[in-house]
Formats: sequence, structure tokens, C-alpha cells
Amino acid sequence: MATALRTRLLRYLHARLGGLPLRLVLWDGAVCDFAPAPRITIGLRSRRLVRFFLTGNIGRLAAAYVAGELVVEGSIGEVIAIGMELAQRIGGRPMMRRAAAVLGRLPRRHSKAADADWVRYHYDVSNAFYRLWLDRHMIYSCAYFTTGGEDLDTAQEHKLDHICRKLRLEPGDRLLDIGCGWGGLLCWAATHYGVSALGITLSQPQCDEARRRVAAAGLDRRIELRVADYRDLKGAEEFDKIVSVGMYEHVGIANLPVYFATLARLLRPGGLALNHGITSTNRDGRGQGPPGGEFIDRFVFPGGELPHISRVLYELAGSGLEILDAEDLRPHYPLTLWHWVRRLEQAREAAIAAAGPARYRIWRIYMAGMAQAFEQGWLSVYQTLVQKNLAAGPAPRPWTRRYQYEARALAPPLSRNPDWGAL
Amino acid sequence: MATALRTRLLRYLHARLGGLPLRLVLWDGAVCDFAPAPRITIGLRSRRLVRFFLTGNIGRLAAAYVAGELVVEGSIGEVIAIGMELAQRIGGRPMMRRAAAVLGRLPRRHSKAADADWVRYHYDVSNAFYRLWLDRHMIYSCAYFTTGGEDLDTAQEHKLDHICRKLRLEPGDRLLDIGCGWGGLLCWAATHYGVSALGITLSQPQCDEARRRVAAAGLDRRIELRVADYRDLKGAEEFDKIVSVGMYEHVGIANLPVYFATLARLLRPGGLALNHGITSTNRDGRGQGPPGGEFIDRFVFPGGELPHISRVLYELAGSGLEILDAEDLRPHYPLTLWHWVRRLEQAREAAIAAAGPARYRIWRIYMAGMAQAFEQGWLSVYQTLVQKNLAAGPAPRPWTRRYQYEARALAPPLSRNPDWGAL
Repeated sequence: MATALRTRLLRYLHARLGGLPLRLVLWDGAVCDFAPAPRITIGLRSRRLVRFFLTGNIGRLAAAYVAGELVVEGSIGEVIAIGMELAQRIGGRPMMRRAAAVLGRLPRRHSKAADADWVRYHYDVSNAFYRLWLDRHMIYSCAYFTTGGEDLDTAQEHKLDHICRKLRLEPGDRLLDIGCGWGGLLCWAATHYGVSALGITLSQPQCDEARRRVAAAGLDRRIELRVADYRDLKGAEEFDKIVSVGMYEHVGIANLPVYFATLARLLRPGGLALNHGITSTNRDGRGQGPPGGEFIDRFVFPGGELPHISRVLYELAGSGLEILDAEDLRPHYPLTLWHWVRRLEQAREAAIAAAGPARYRIWRIYMAGMAQAFEQGWLSVYQTLVQKNLAAGPAPRPWTRRYQYEARALAPPLSRNPDWGAL
Repeated sequence: MATALRTRLLRYLHARLGGLPLRLVLWDGAVCDFAPAPRITIGLRSRRLVRFFLTGNIGRLAAAYVAGELVVEGSIGEVIAIGMELAQRIGGRPMMRRAAAVLGRLPRRHSKAADADWVRYHYDVSNAFYRLWLDRHMIYSCAYFTTGGEDLDTAQEHKLDHICRKLRLEPGDRLLDIGCGWGGLLCWAATHYGVSALGITLSQPQCDEARRRVAAAGLDRRIELRVADYRDLKGAEEFDKIVSVGMYEHVGIANLPVYFATLARLLRPGGLALNHGITSTNRDGRGQGPPGGEFIDRFVFPGGELPHISRVLYELAGSGLEILDAEDLRPHYPLTLWHWVRRLEQAREAAIAAAGPARYRIWRIYMAGMAQAFEQGWLSVYQTLVQKNLAAGPAPRPWTRRYQYEARALAPPLSRNPDWGAL
């Protein structure tokens, strides 16, 4: 690049980025600081990246980041915060809009094959990879803090128990867990509440790990696991309770009626279901989706779509499920995500060994970016408790939600009894 | 009517109503029982009513009932239940649809003048009339039971306190109550939580009674009352908390954005608001509105419109209010309504003296009909807690909802201090 051109480029950037604690390192090693003590560094290792940088082509920049062609240094939290400010200043609203364009808006065809591919893309990475930085139960969804100061293991156990309480699980209940991950919730519910359960996931490695954990807990006669799509649950069996945590985000907005109708069909009259999942404020284009949407869609959660909470309730109710209780857990997700990011960073070498450097980069930045999106309120996460009503009259239920907060220690493990609720 | 015609009419009705524990008394005194031991009686005191009866003209039948031309005898609960079965059998689905047609569907122009007229129609009936059968705080909205066995006074106090807890009211908070009725919530919040408050209503008699109660409680320096439309609150004052109980039903679906935007504007950043109100499942015509809709609209709540809960959340969020918590209280409303009906029936003579026989008939049957609609799930009632967020980052809030259920007696009255929060 001619010196004159470089001078004009840097003048252009200085006019826009002046004061931002950012160091830019160009492909030829030239360094440009936009403030006296830059806190993060962005390196553009290839000349062609300048164009994407200036035109706010998030998709190309993301691909370059994943490929290691665009590098970032500094605390990942500052990378996200300063990077967002940078995007605002360079591209302004169009860039932000473009960044937000994908998540929750593009209609996607969620065939079973596509869903299976997308889920495998994210979850078949490597059990070892996730084991490095998730909690001991391998719960890959928003934890539930009671003080904000608990460690991740404790907060995830609080979450599992909060869900079990909301569902009023009782010994002998038949529980279905749609998107059961590595089986953490199933084991908790069977151990502490005495249910028997079926868990389904589209990821074979998840299912394998879940089976291993179930067997290790001596629960293999009480918990069945299958690699299956929710649309394949066609049997006559009805469940007393259904739970789905961090799964409906993969269903696709167009498929929500089918999905919730499946819940309604599989639930006995009077039965309870709980849907725990992320929502976005990107409603009819009036709200704003999260920056990094295109990145998320391409590299993290292909096919993921995040409806507004009102759409979730609309579709649930339209499926014959009565909305009993919707709880916003938004402040819990950044905390969860920062726990994950810190743990991932601490396990950097092992994570790269388990899943490769690109995955490490993607997961680190996507989780930090999501944390930011939750902090800003562009994303939220709700637990929605619904009930399938009896043909006539209200289904029996407690008068108040106090039962969710009864002062007691976590439910103690029930003693093992091999005859209990064998499948 | 010729005997042959009457014979054909009765044969027609017997074919449809046979087995229904109903006695029909015609205008000329002829009696027809459709089962051996009829439990209710419907009297058609005018020949022209037969036509409306056969064609399912709910509007004309309702007018005849109000005028005393169509009379019913029997327990009002059975009148409603058997009357609904009758409507089904005579008119089938078209009749039910027609009955359900009005509520929540007809777009109405909610001008300030129209709203004021409609509100006065319902609430200016007579304070004495409402005092006869409401609880001691004169709370005219769904109570909150913890066992189902409490008396109405206790359940309404539970409700007031549940709302105050959800709003995390604290001494010194400025509270706005939109649609404050006879001031019960304002007095409770000022007495037990030490807030200072402004209450508005469109009903002058309500405002007068509320002022009387405020003065009697020695709270007149802490609580201000105005006859005002929510659209007239144009001052610069911001409130820490806003509450609206059983009022938004009068706003009209088309005006929800204006209404919720008013809440958002009047709330300080980080402030909380609670909307408590009735919803219907009549969504886009796929759900079913309550039978008696036309009656309700004409004789009970002119201008009332009941959106689906998902629409409430959609509009709240669209106004910049974050949905923290939505709680369904559906089972509480039939219980509340049956309390009111029983108390009204017990005070029949005094109620007729206070408001006339037509009002007595209307209120008795509308409340019984509403109870049925809640029992069937056509209507529901939600408390929705929202927060106006700070410009950046999440507003401070408790990690869990346990604070709503902390084991304690009802908040004790604070000692009176005339300097506290004087307006």
C-alpha cells in the first residue's frame, strides 16, 4: 500500500476511532494506537481485511477471525465492549443493523436433517471440550444464582432444583426432557425427586456421555436416553411433566407451533411443562437483535432463531398450553457466560487440544459477545411454566408460587431402589 | 299462539333440550319441563322473546333480561351453567360465536370522553352499592388466596400485599396508582410500606370515597387523589413505582401502546410497574372469547377489551418496559367472583335500593358468568411486573423472586409521621 494511501486510511480511522483504547496492527506490522494506553489490540494479518473492516462486513471479518487472519488481544470482555464501540463508530447504524440482521429474522427451513446437522455442528464438538469449562453436571444453559457470588457448580444445581420445583416433580412422575444434553437434569430429577424419565438429544456424543453418567449414578433402570428428533416421539405414551432447557432456540420460529403442539400432545391433561430459553427483543424489526448475529448464525448456532417472549407465549397458548408463570432470568446469563469464558480461558491449551484453535476462538468470543448482549438487554432468557388443562375446569394447582421458594435445603438424594419406576 | 304452533315449538325444543334440568315458562303461563326435576326456570314474559330465543339473539335476550322481561330463577351458578348448555344446544356454534363476538374484537375508539363515559357507567353506580358486597377495603379486582379457604377481606389484603412486595415498595417511594378505585391499594401501600402516592380515577364518586378513606386513615398528606385520565399526566414528575389493577381492561387494545408508553414515561429509570388485569384467549379468532361478550359489552363494561397475555407482553416490551415476571392468577378469580355474588345476593334488598333492580340483575349475572368464563379458561388474569431499564446495563434487582414469598406476617403498619413524604 502506498504511503499516501496508508496516511489517508489512518487519518480516516483516527477521525472516527480517536480516543478508543485500541491498537490496530496492520498486515505489514505497522502499528496505530488510537489512545495513549490501548487496552486491546486488533491485528489485520491480511491487506484485504481492511476493506471488510471499513465496510463493516461482519460476516467476512468473523470468518477471518475464526481462521486466525484477524486476531484480537486483551481481555475478551474489553475486546467485546471496545469492538462494539468500534463497530458503532466505523459503520454506524447500518453496520449494527447488518450485524443484527440474521438472528431471529431469516426464515430457515428446519427439516429434521438440517436440525440434526446444526445441532451436531455445535454439540458434537467434543465432550472433552465442554467438560473442561462447564460445571460438574455439564449444564450448558443459564445458571441460577441466589446471591450472585456462588460458584458455577452451585448455581447450576440451584437451576436444576428451581426447575424441578416449578414442575412439582414427585416420585413416580414420568418426565420427558427434550434436548437433554449430557443428562444433568435427568440425573438430578431422578436422584432428588424420584422420577423416571426419557431424555432425547440429536447429538450421539451427548447421548453417549449421558448414558455413561446415568449408569455411573445407578439410574439406568429409571432413565432412558435416545438420539431422536422431537418430531419422532410418536408413541402413545403421555408424560406427567416435560422439560426443555436451552433447546427451543434450535427449533426455528416457524416450527414453534409444531414444537409446542408436540409438548401438548405428549403431556397428560393437567400435566406441567417448562420451557427455558433465550429470547430476543428483535420483534418485527422494531427491536434490535444482538450484534454478532451473523457470526453466531454462521459459526456458533447455525439455524438458531430467538423469538420475542411474547411470541413464545402466543405460540404456547395457541398449542393449548396455559401460561402459568414466566420468569425473566436475564441477569443470570452474563454471570454464567463469564464463568464459562474464564474457565475456558483457564483451560486454553487443553481446549485447543480437544477441539482445535478455531473452535477455541469461536467459543471464547461468542460467549463473551452473548454476555454483552444479555447485559445490554438485547437478549433475555425466560423460564415459562405451562399446564395442559383438563377438559373442563382448571387443573389442580397450588394457589401461590410459594412452593417454588419453600425454605429447605436442596432436596436430598432419594435412596436407590431398583424397583422404583423401572422403565 | 295457536295450539298447533305451540305444539310444534315445544316439540322442537324438546328435541334439543330434552334432559336439561330446565323449566321454561311461556308468556301465557304455560310451563314446560325438560327434565323431571328442573333446577332452574327461565320465564319468557313476552311472546316476541321466543324468536330471539330460537335464533340465539344474545343481545336482545340480554336486554330483555335487564328489563325484567326475561326472568331466571334458581342458583345463579346453575343458571349460568345450564344457560350455557342451552345456548350450545339451541344455537350451536354460531350462537356461541355470536355470543363471543364482541369482547376483544370490535375496534373501539377510546377517546377520553368515551372512556370517561364508559368508566362512569360502571363505577358511578353508587358507592353504597359496591360497599354492600366488596371487601372492607373495597377492592374491585381479583383477590389472592393462599389456601382458597380465606374470607374475602383476608384474600384481598393478601393481594394488596402481594402487589406491594412485587413492587418492592419502600418508605419514601413515590407510587402512582392508575385507576385507583376507592383507594384501597393506596392506603395499604402508604400504611404498610411508607410510600407517598398519587392515585387517579375517572370516577368522581370513587375519588370522593377514596379521599374520605385517606383522610380517615390520616394519610391525606401522603396520598393525593385526582379525577384524571392517564393521558393527562403530563407533568415532569417521575415515579419510583407504578401500579395499575383492573384498569387496563378499559384502555382498549388499540390504545395499549399509548397506555404502556405513558407508564414508561412516568417511571424513573430502574423503576418498577405492575399491571394486573384480565386477559382472554380470543387471539386472532383462533381462541374463543367468553359467551356473554355482547352482554358484557353492552351492559357491564362498555368499551372493555381483553387482549391475550402475549399481546400485553408484546406491547409492554414495545414501550421499553422489560418483562420481569408474569403470574397467572386464573383460579383466584372465580373464587373472588363467587364471594361477590353470594354477598350481593345476601344484600339483595339493599342493593336494589341503592342501584335499582336492573343493576342488581346485571351485576349478579355478569359476575356469575365471568366466574364461569374463568373456570373454563376463556378468561384469565395476570400480574405482569416490568422494569424500566437504566440506559446501560441491567437495573439492580434481586436474583430470585423469593422476596415475594419471604415468610413474615403482613407488613405491620408504619407509625404515622406527618413529616414523612408529605406531598
